[in-house]
Amino acid sequence: MTDLRQYIEHTLLKQDATRKEVQKLLDEAVENGFLGVCINPCYVRFAKKYLQGQKLKVVTVVGFPLGASLPEVKAFEAQKAISDGADEIDMVINVSCIKNKDWDAIVEEIETVKKACEGKPLKVILETDLLNSIEIEQACILCVEAKADFVKTSTGFVKNGVGAKVEDVALMAKTVKPYGLKVKASGGIKDKAKALLLIEAGADRLGTSSGVLLVGN
Amino acid sequence: MTDLRQYIEHTLLKQDATRKEVQKLLDEAVENGFLGVCINPCYVRFAKKYLQGQKLKVVTVVGFPLGASLPEVKAFEAQKAISDGADEIDMVINVSCIKNKDWDAIVEEIETVKKACEGKPLKVILETDLLNSIEIEQACILCVEAKADFVKTSTGFVKNGVGAKVEDVALMAKTVKPYGLKVKASGGIKDKAKALLLIEAGADRLGTSSGVLLVGN
Repeated sequence: MTDLRQYIEHTLLKQDATRKEVQKLLDEAVENGFLGVCINPCYVRFAKKYLQGQKLKVVTVVGFPLGASLPEVKAFEAQKAISDGADEIDMVINVSCIKNKDWDAIVEEIETVKKACEGKPLKVILETDLLNSIEIEQACILCVEAKADFVKTSTGFVKNGVGAKVEDVALMAKTVKPYGLKVKASGGIKDKAKALLLIEAGADRLGTSSGVLLVGN
Repeated sequence: MTDLRQYIEHTLLKQDATRKEVQKLLDEAVENGFLGVCINPCYVRFAKKYLQGQKLKVVTVVGFPLGASLPEVKAFEAQKAISDGADEIDMVINVSCIKNKDWDAIVEEIETVKKACEGKPLKVILETDLLNSIEIEQACILCVEAKADFVKTSTGFVKNGVGAKVEDVALMAKTVKPYGLKVKASGGIKDKAKALLLIEAGADRLGTSSGVLLVGN
């Protein structure tokens, strides 16, 4: 049996999340033995202090959720998050650059942010709901070229988006895994059956706000 | 008769907007004599170059749309946008800070971003869909205290949000106008009747992607 707990980044990214709600998320993540939490940048410092002594990874987001910021702004945001104690950075790719076929701009941006991460893992969110399979594969190749650590499916913020799809995760895994990159599935992961299918398709991580439900009996 | 054209910031903030779509927006704004355009940071430099010699204001967004970035990151993003040529900055307030009643943090953040704007107008997006009327009034008071130039209703990105409401704009206008601040209504402005009601309620600007429709016959 797959133990889901060490796949889960327990996630709370809504913009009106209170300190109390973030605290509850952290408590649940500790109690359930999750791999980590994924929270907004303004809560990283609080989370690191609250979790002192715990193994839990604190993951945060950069250029989130639109990815339409400038590369140097994403890099600065990553650097600040790392200095606040973030263990991993999930940045959003510039989807406009994909649509414009500005491949060089994408590679340069990811490299710039990766440098700002000071050795901490960088995940690149492709926002698969907005891409076709050719664009997803192309984006994965650019992430390989730029030496990202993970490709990730979704922000969870696309209007009428479905989030992580099994076929997208399979395509991403097939494209990046030969080069040592990993895959994070995120968005719309609300039950155990879906979670297990995504892992079977190649997901190394699951970003979900339904973590407690997923590991329940 | 109110001439809507000089109220309108013609807006395109979707994350997969292509250069071609942005170009079309700029052309439409010039043709229709709008006050300005509102676009993502990654397109500001392109827009300024394309619009050379036009009066049109180029407005961009900071900490958008969640407002959950660190104050220094929002300030850095504003500074970069200004150096790319942005004429005005629309930043998103930290809604979590409002929910946590961290009033001082909100004032400090707005002041920090305002300083980075180097004298260019700063609008503060309250995200009224997530606030009750007491919170809207409180947020307005903080914007007055921090010497913002405008308060603005909405990002247009809240799930199931309605955007600019006449009663919210009226409350905002009543609270900030005695202190010389202005009001921008944005989100869900899709017809002329609504636009006129918002102006009657106190809106000095309208952020909308339906500008061409609003001024049509």
